[in-house]
Amino acid sequence: MEVYFDNSATTRCYDSVKDIVVKAMTEDFGNPSAMHLKGVEAEKYIKSSAESLARLLKVQEKEILFTSGGTESDNLALIGAAFANKRSGNHIITTSVEHPAVSQPALFLQEQGFEVTYLPVDSRGVVKMDALKAVLREDTILVSVMYVNNEVGAVMPVEEIAALVHEKSPKALFHVDAIQAFGKYRIYPKKMGIDLLSVSGHKIHGPKGVGFLYINEKAKIQPQILGGGQQGGMRSGTDNVPGIAGLGAAAVEIYKNLEENVENMYRLKEHIAQGLEKIGDIRINGMDLREGAPQILSISVMGVRSEVLLHSLEERGIYVSAGSACSSHKRKPSATLAAMGMSKDQIESTVRLSFCEENTIEEADYFLQVMGELVPMLRRYSRR
Amino acid sequence: MEVYFDNSATTRCYDSVKDIVVKAMTEDFGNPSAMHLKGVEAEKYIKSSAESLARLLKVQEKEILFTSGGTESDNLALIGAAFANKRSGNHIITTSVEHPAVSQPALFLQEQGFEVTYLPVDSRGVVKMDALKAVLREDTILVSVMYVNNEVGAVMPVEEIAALVHEKSPKALFHVDAIQAFGKYRIYPKKMGIDLLSVSGHKIHGPKGVGFLYINEKAKIQPQILGGGQQGGMRSGTDNVPGIAGLGAAAVEIYKNLEENVENMYRLKEHIAQGLEKIGDIRINGMDLREGAPQILSISVMGVRSEVLLHSLEERGIYVSAGSACSSHKRKPSATLAAMGMSKDQIESTVRLSFCEENTIEEADYFLQVMGELVPMLRRYSRR
Repeated sequence: MEVYFDNSATTRCYDSVKDIVVKAMTEDFGNPSAMHLKGVEAEKYIKSSAESLARLLKVQEKEILFTSGGTESDNLALIGAAFANKRSGNHIITTSVEHPAVSQPALFLQEQGFEVTYLPVDSRGVVKMDALKAVLREDTILVSVMYVNNEVGAVMPVEEIAALVHEKSPKALFHVDAIQAFGKYRIYPKKMGIDLLSVSGHKIHGPKGVGFLYINEKAKIQPQILGGGQQGGMRSGTDNVPGIAGLGAAAVEIYKNLEENVENMYRLKEHIAQGLEKIGDIRINGMDLREGAPQILSISVMGVRSEVLLHSLEERGIYVSAGSACSSHKRKPSATLAAMGMSKDQIESTVRLSFCEENTIEEADYFLQVMGELVPMLRRYSRR
Repeated sequence: MEVYFDNSATTRCYDSVKDIVVKAMTEDFGNPSAMHLKGVEAEKYIKSSAESLARLLKVQEKEILFTSGGTESDNLALIGAAFANKRSGNHIITTSVEHPAVSQPALFLQEQGFEVTYLPVDSRGVVKMDALKAVLREDTILVSVMYVNNEVGAVMPVEEIAALVHEKSPKALFHVDAIQAFGKYRIYPKKMGIDLLSVSGHKIHGPKGVGFLYINEKAKIQPQILGGGQQGGMRSGTDNVPGIAGLGAAAVEIYKNLEENVENMYRLKEHIAQGLEKIGDIRINGMDLREGAPQILSISVMGVRSEVLLHSLEERGIYVSAGSACSSHKRKPSATLAAMGMSKDQIESTVRLSFCEENTIEEADYFLQVMGELVPMLRRYSRR
């Protein structure tokens, strides 16, 4: 049996995504910037994708900017917002548990002379509201907080944060990295007070190499990729028609049965958590099961190093992740888990399971059975 | 009959490209940064693509950096090189006929305090070597010259330019935008003295949304997209495995029968040029037919506005471009054609035909027949 529990690293493309990608690569392959029919046909794919996304988010089409993925979206939000608004102030706020796609640009901005405040989180991984309240200033120009933490599935109170930001820092833009939240939550930026929202295609069964940034029409952002002036000059380069079409198709499909799929993922998560209890000395990290994100279950198998467990599971056809797989083989201890106050031992024993709606209870049972066999054995081995 | 003569705007994907893209989207869909088998399998696609490209260019695999396309490659080359080397000098040289993906970043660098010199071209669109010689300085840190001009197909003497640059400006990096040249010429950066080389996937029957930048291992470049540290920290974001695999497959296929394909495109170009002579008062722009790029034929149909001709051809199933289609519907008069010294009348009558190896003499004959009917009619109309 093969069990893929690493859906927060990346997902398999839906068939509907594959189909539209192929069509845009081989039939309607024109350049949307071309003035003739082939260009017009290609442009329809982009318009249709923007329409679908705008409808799902209840925003305007023109507020959707397509990028090469979540990382570019985050970079554009952070760097683009900081440089476009530096006359209004110099202060940026983010959290200590952001994905590197946010924390690395934040570090870059710090090197460029911006003042960056990193908010602490509680032991569940949730940002501390008191801390936020204490640091919001008149000259704060940008606040960036993720919606769902990619390592432990902690869900941030983004709506509450937005209200506080706009009250205390009227010049600030509020950016939300929703890369692990889009397709799991219904997100309405306008109602929620979100100015910038990053989304990635390949986390929702769409193609790799494509994503988008929602940009409130009133928000000022400095483009980062310059050239032919595509997308209203905000992001140059021939539009990635197949990718953009695939992203739109994936978004439509994942939101079709959202509530049902989310409920199924929660049941899977609970089923596994209950099953793991019997093995003993396995800690569940993050928020209470139903409060955290439906697709992420972070566990610390005390006494077993995460890489050892990962590779032992792999040998039995089960794929999970040690920390976040987005960090390209880096073996640095997770900043998120450290910020949650975990001991080094626990951090080194932490693996992430991440589900999609296609995962089944049978897969969960197989995983539990394998864990029941593996963990005592690995513990004996490592404690020798 | 449908005739697609707009291959310099974009191309149809090869079937081999489609197949590998589909495989990487639906079967080997892992995240190459994941430590388990699914990640390893995905990483093989990237390694294999880098190997293919490195072999074709006679460079090292690690000198290939994948990007989201030609525009990002150009931006990274210009902005990344300028900021990484600003301690060595402040002077940048480029030409007056570059694609906006180069000229816009150059303008941005100018705003950031860099001194940018724009080289003139002759009436064929070829950069003037004397002008280059006169402006190369000790503190020149970057020279960026395109290989093949996208509007008229002028071929720049890149090898000669490289020699001069490295002789007179030892600190300078030499960047070549080869987006219209790769797949038409055999390019060997090391032998030719090229430090940075931009390539796009969708101009060579590969996918949109992917490209690469060759970066000589000794060249210093500042990354522009920060995050998880993929590609040695030079370009973060989950690798676009399907796109990268498709790019590699396209490159291998287009170089398979290069000489034969190029010869066929030259014959097509000559056939059309000869045929157009009979219509009268149609100027062929750029270099002599066999000296210019095989795939580009720029013509000025005097007395007929290019958009009018474009749409009249479109009605008969023939797709060409008015100026460069990469500039997203902008109707600004072409800077390239102006730099070549063309009159406004001629510029406004200029269309670009661009071929690929799949175009046929039958298509050329159909085009000539339609032109023979259309042009006298349109001239009567526009001269009324």
